[in-house]
Amino acid sequence: MTTKNRKKIYEGKAKILYEGPEPGTLVQYFKDDATAFNGEKKAQLEGKGVINNRISEFVMTKLTNIGVQNHFIKRLNLREQLIREVEIVPLEVVCRNVVAGSMAKRFGLPEGQQLPRSIIEFYYKNDALNDPLVTEEHITAFNWANTQEIDDILATTLRVNDFLSGMFAAVGITLVDFKIEYGRLFEGDFSRVILADEVSPDSCRLWDSTSGEKLDKDRFRRDMGNVIESYTEVAKRLGIMGDMPKVIEGGVQ
Amino acid sequence: MTTKNRKKIYEGKAKILYEGPEPGTLVQYFKDDATAFNGEKKAQLEGKGVINNRISEFVMTKLTNIGVQNHFIKRLNLREQLIREVEIVPLEVVCRNVVAGSMAKRFGLPEGQQLPRSIIEFYYKNDALNDPLVTEEHITAFNWANTQEIDDILATTLRVNDFLSGMFAAVGITLVDFKIEYGRLFEGDFSRVILADEVSPDSCRLWDSTSGEKLDKDRFRRDMGNVIESYTEVAKRLGIMGDMPKVIEGGVQ
Repeated sequence: MTTKNRKKIYEGKAKILYEGPEPGTLVQYFKDDATAFNGEKKAQLEGKGVINNRISEFVMTKLTNIGVQNHFIKRLNLREQLIREVEIVPLEVVCRNVVAGSMAKRFGLPEGQQLPRSIIEFYYKNDALNDPLVTEEHITAFNWANTQEIDDILATTLRVNDFLSGMFAAVGITLVDFKIEYGRLFEGDFSRVILADEVSPDSCRLWDSTSGEKLDKDRFRRDMGNVIESYTEVAKRLGIMGDMPKVIEGGVQ
Repeated sequence: MTTKNRKKIYEGKAKILYEGPEPGTLVQYFKDDATAFNGEKKAQLEGKGVINNRISEFVMTKLTNIGVQNHFIKRLNLREQLIREVEIVPLEVVCRNVVAGSMAKRFGLPEGQQLPRSIIEFYYKNDALNDPLVTEEHITAFNWANTQEIDDILATTLRVNDFLSGMFAAVGITLVDFKIEYGRLFEGDFSRVILADEVSPDSCRLWDSTSGEKLDKDRFRRDMGNVIESYTEVAKRLGIMGDMPKVIEGGVQ
């Protein structure tokens, strides 16, 4: 594999970052590992990394086309993509359109209730603390991001939400919520935040618009079965299943 | 008692609100009930209501003097004060200067660490949900307060923090944090938010500036003993113990 000779920079729960071929680049490798509840639940979902690599490529490329800067450069192979090296802002940025997951629990609201408007939340990326919800007050006081960066993140996240809502609506899927991350790109003495990480059924809640069927990681979290089949369904509807049939049969290494 | 013939409007964990003598007024009665951990821990602390009534009177009166509008009109007797009727904004507004309590836990920080700047947090007032931390996004989306009200609350809370920090510093006490609430005062078609609730050792963390000794409700929460003695010490230092010695001996009804 191409990654064999590369230096590992960081290994997360679903992805590995390797040194890239040129300074300022990294190789992002998508694993098949699925985790939930802060790593308490774990499994291998054969082919997941391949599908998420493709869906994320699709989304990031289209976002670049509409002027939403992000870390994606190009897909290298089934499981890897070349990305810009950024300094990750230690925040999980969640954008919600419909009540689900932790918001349902936090506010005692029924899952599926339409929110009066899209809501953006920040969670501090820290497994030991269980990624707690934080406010802009915490973010600026503890210097996780400055106010300009927060403003940029909010504006970009709303654009991403608009784009993804449209993209999924076009294929009969409701975008309930999604999580994204941002990173600082340095240019001389300056830096700006750009979209990083991934956009995939691991990081979005996607419900079939007609049946309400879940087509995302909640199938894994809640032991609903057919996880890979659902991820594949999302890729299929987006028309990006060209060279992936063997994934479904579990033949991808 | 004066309250005997009045209609009870609302009973909280530490206070009761009765109908006031005139429209637009209420009588706020301070109970001796102490509760913690969302009501799981309970006790009667004889004289607490009397002390808190006096300390809150002292603070609210001084705040009015510097132009911070609040609900206090006048103290009626040992346990009661006359207040303006407001529509309570369902938020607990917490202002922190030093790390303690839930912030220490949430971010894994040591209690006593000075914050880089004062931080204001909002918690949704809802016992069933355990008063969860919320962001301005949640507050405006769920219509608990509008952006103008949030701005007013933030500005007023910073003023209250400045005033209380000075007031307590003058008597050798560090204001670690405090919780306050706001209410809407209606005037014709308009409303504005003013400070409500109370300011007392029940709602503030107060540490002796030299010894670090806690002089607040944490003595009750953490079973440290001498709760009433500490509350009394705070009142004494503020010079408002004139007619209260009998409280300490538990003689107040």
